[in-house]
Amino acid sequence: LSRAFADVEIGKLSGAVGTYSTLDPEVEQAVMEKLRLAHEPVSTQVVPRDRHAALVAAIALAGSSLERLAVELRHLQRTEVREIEEPFREGQKGSSAMPHKRNPIICERISGLARVLRGNAQVAFENVPLWHERDISHSSAERVILPDSTTLIDYMQHLASGVIDGMRVYPDRMRENLELTHGALYSQAVLSALVETGLSRDQAYRLVQQNAQRAWDEGRSFQALLEQEPQVAERLDAGALSELCDPHRFLRHLPAVFERLEELGR
Amino acid sequence: LSRAFADVEIGKLSGAVGTYSTLDPEVEQAVMEKLRLAHEPVSTQVVPRDRHAALVAAIALAGSSLERLAVELRHLQRTEVREIEEPFREGQKGSSAMPHKRNPIICERISGLARVLRGNAQVAFENVPLWHERDISHSSAERVILPDSTTLIDYMQHLASGVIDGMRVYPDRMRENLELTHGALYSQAVLSALVETGLSRDQAYRLVQQNAQRAWDEGRSFQALLEQEPQVAERLDAGALSELCDPHRFLRHLPAVFERLEELGR
Amino acid sequence: LSRAFADVEIGKLSGAVGTYSTLDPEVEQAVMEKLRLAHEPVSTQVVPRDRHAALVAAIALAGSSLERLAVELRHLQRTEVREIEEPFREGQKGSSAMPHKRNPIICERISGLARVLRGNAQVAFENVPLWHERDISHSSAERVILPDSTTLIDYMQHLASGVIDGMRVYPDRMRENLELTHGALYSQAVLSALVETGLSRDQAYRLVQQNAQRAWDEGRSFQALLEQEPQVAERLDAGALSELCDPHRFLRHLPAVFERLEELGR
Amino acid sequence: LSRAFADVEIGKLSGAVGTYSTLDPEVEQAVMEKLRLAHEPVSTQVVPRDRHAALVAAIALAGSSLERLAVELRHLQRTEVREIEEPFREGQKGSSAMPHKRNPIICERISGLARVLRGNAQVAFENVPLWHERDISHSSAERVILPDSTTLIDYMQHLASGVIDGMRVYPDRMRENLELTHGALYSQAVLSALVETGLSRDQAYRLVQQNAQRAWDEGRSFQALLEQEPQVAERLDAGALSELCDPHRFLRHLPAVFERLEELGR
Repeated sequence: LSRAFADVEIGKLSGAVGTYSTLDPEVEQAVMEKLRLAHEPVSTQVVPRDRHAALVAAIALAGSSLERLAVELRHLQRTEVREIEEPFREGQKGSSAMPHKRNPIICERISGLARVLRGNAQVAFENVPLWHERDISHSSAERVILPDSTTLIDYMQHLASGVIDGMRVYPDRMRENLELTHGALYSQAVLSALVETGLSRDQAYRLVQQNAQRAWDEGRSFQALLEQEPQVAERLDAGALSELCDPHRFLRHLPAVFERLEELGR
Repeated sequence: LSRAFADVEIGKLSGAVGTYSTLDPEVEQAVMEKLRLAHEPVSTQVVPRDRHAALVAAIALAGSSLERLAVELRHLQRTEVREIEEPFREGQKGSSAMPHKRNPIICERISGLARVLRGNAQVAFENVPLWHERDISHSSAERVILPDSTTLIDYMQHLASGVIDGMRVYPDRMRENLELTHGALYSQAVLSALVETGLSRDQAYRLVQQNAQRAWDEGRSFQALLEQEPQVAERLDAGALSELCDPHRFLRHLPAVFERLEELGR
Repeated sequence: LSRAFADVEIGKLSGAVGTYSTLDPEVEQAVMEKLRLAHEPVSTQVVPRDRHAALVAAIALAGSSLERLAVELRHLQRTEVREIEEPFREGQKGSSAMPHKRNPIICERISGLARVLRGNAQVAFENVPLWHERDISHSSAERVILPDSTTLIDYMQHLASGVIDGMRVYPDRMRENLELTHGALYSQAVLSALVETGLSRDQAYRLVQQNAQRAWDEGRSFQALLEQEPQVAERLDAGALSELCDPHRFLRHLPAVFERLEELGR
Repeated sequence: LSRAFADVEIGKLSGAVGTYSTLDPEVEQAVMEKLRLAHEPVSTQVVPRDRHAALVAAIALAGSSLERLAVELRHLQRTEVREIEEPFREGQKGSSAMPHKRNPIICERISGLARVLRGNAQVAFENVPLWHERDISHSSAERVILPDSTTLIDYMQHLASGVIDGMRVYPDRMRENLELTHGALYSQAVLSALVETGLSRDQAYRLVQQNAQRAWDEGRSFQALLEQEPQVAERLDAGALSELCDPHRFLRHLPAVFERLEELGR
């Protein structure tokens, strides 16, 4: 967005067909400097509309990325998952049918407005191939899409920041949901460990898949099931299995990822 | 448009998930009759959004058809063609660089706004696959696109009607432009006539193309050139050639076309 | 779709600018009858492109409606919900990380292709305002979008039918998920019943909301909690409460809805 | 385009949910270096789709800019203007109705394909908000739009280069078209010059507009008409008027513009 907004900080004073017929290029340059704008290197009657299209497309892209966040949170808030809730005021009314239930209405609003931004990008692209030095057809369209797109992305950023700042997080629910498969989600880790002990990949896969399926279908502990499998037990003792079925293993590279994220922000 | 607007004159009263949990289907039917709306046969919490998408798409299509008209008029008004001009008030300022020249600014406005309607159709399509019985993401988007699309198409129809009502037509310029090719535009008619007299298509084509090219390049009368071609002259006398090179021949089926157009309007 | 496909079964034989310069309108009519096509009432060099745009837009709309179905199924298949699964062959590999888990890959494919159809609708709208009698710019675009859109919607319909035909449904999971709120989902029914007994809406709402929240938060039966509330118990006996908290109540109008659906299919 | 293509030269090896559960971040880095790719700083199961959307949008923008060129050439080739013609092979057939006339079919093809690129950008934006770590819905869409957009922009660049390389330019027609207004196009220059001699702007404007209109309407020389206006003649002698009505005046800043263009290319 920064790059795209910088790219439209540009002006022109090159006359009605871009030939500097009444003013010299030096005048244009001096005026633009006073206005703290760059001057368009080669203009027609107007600044070519590819600049504006690049901006409106960048806004549509930013909006789609905000929607990516919004979609994730909408999933996490659904009744069956309920790992987070977007912020709500005390006394805010819940869903009309279920007063105790709250819908992720802010994230849904972000999703809806992201669509408007994408539609506007389409309009901006169509504004590029103007006729001759320019026709004025882009003008009516830009009066709609330029204020709408710039205002909406600003509003959506405020909405998204507010959601993150005030989000309610339910770690217990996260833990419960992790337990839904009764450990089957550790199957990849166990598979790799078995192969490393020398078991053939085919045999290891069959062992792991059977027990993972059984754990999930019958609601029994994947780890306990594996402990009773002779072929597994002789290769991995209870301690090793415990370690493989521990969710903390998945977090060990978290610091490295956060470090990269911080670098991006710099 | 009529069909699309009729298709959204529909309502529902089937409760929060469309199961008529608190009201009977008969109540819905009675209320909708009072409101002079149809009732949605199978609804969720809302009327499914495919109806609204069909409307916004029909509006985009109508706008694109108005743009087809606008593009034609913009072409006809360009300085080198200038067969029509869209209406302007006495004293209305012309183009900024050439005070004597008027730009087709209303038609250009129609072109620009048609783009906005197309972008909105995209948004309406994306509103169809809502989550579950419905999420509320369509709501924020519809607050932008429903008023914008319906208002704009109404405005564009007014603009287009006004342009047609007050259009200035320059028949002399049309005649001059017809003469630009010095008769080469009649080549297809002459070609057919020559073939009908028994000349081989290849020979006829070569004769016609050579003289058409010469007429256009050298600014000489196509008909006069043909009269001097022995192979043509022995087949088509001056009277026959005159008839083939008469623009009125192209108008002979006009009444049939207009009749069809009137039938469409009924 | 039927209507839109019928609307493009049309042809024209009106010459290079639609003036029937070499053939009579009667010839056009006779030829089209032989081809079992309607004849375009007023054509230019081509059949105007609004017809084709209406078709490609109708396909985009149909695709978006299929995506609505696909999105619903994708939700129902997620690990935490798992009320249905789209069909899979015996031996089909599951998710790469969790061999026991199957992703709704067919429904996801429908979602992705629905986007392509929407993008193509945009192209078709832009094809309408051709220049003059017609320019040929629509041709290159139509060679991409006409085969792609018609083929894809056919493919997507096959995918969707296949998913419905072979879908695995897990009624036990549905019942479990209904129980997730411990009865709080019946709050609207209880609220209405309490108001009908003469309790003020404000009081009824407070009673219902408090107990619904408690049921959900503490994992206790909503119905049992209400039975212990004196203000509720004196108005609704255990039998009445049981009836209000019975999911079958929500199904009582199902036959009426299915009847309407069948009428639509006729 | 260069920037956008560079931004997708990136890969990831962070496992099924981006947690490096089976491989260390160092392995990812080493592999990407071997592949001469950057590594995605924070990934999920996939490289986030905003990168790909940025690329497809940049291609749509480049295509729209090529269409801007194509539209300009299509205008310049129309029968009434005919200042340029796009290249054609000896023996290439002309328009079907007028064998001597050639349509700008390559530029029209560029226009049509630019629409396809814009539609694809819409699809790419919609691919950004995937579900969870990722769903696979983008995959089916990308199999259509990624090869289509990259292949088409390459093809369109070849078409456009070929048109420029082989373009036929008709300077005589350009001069004739400049003369269409009989000098009225110099009115702005004369207006400025009159105001500089001390005449009030209002008076100058009226004088210039009247004579410009008369020149255009009656086909008389604007310069000659002005020479006969006492108020003009006493301020601007024949030499001064001649200079103001000389098209070369408009070209005096051409070298500066070309210099800027060359700088851009560096």
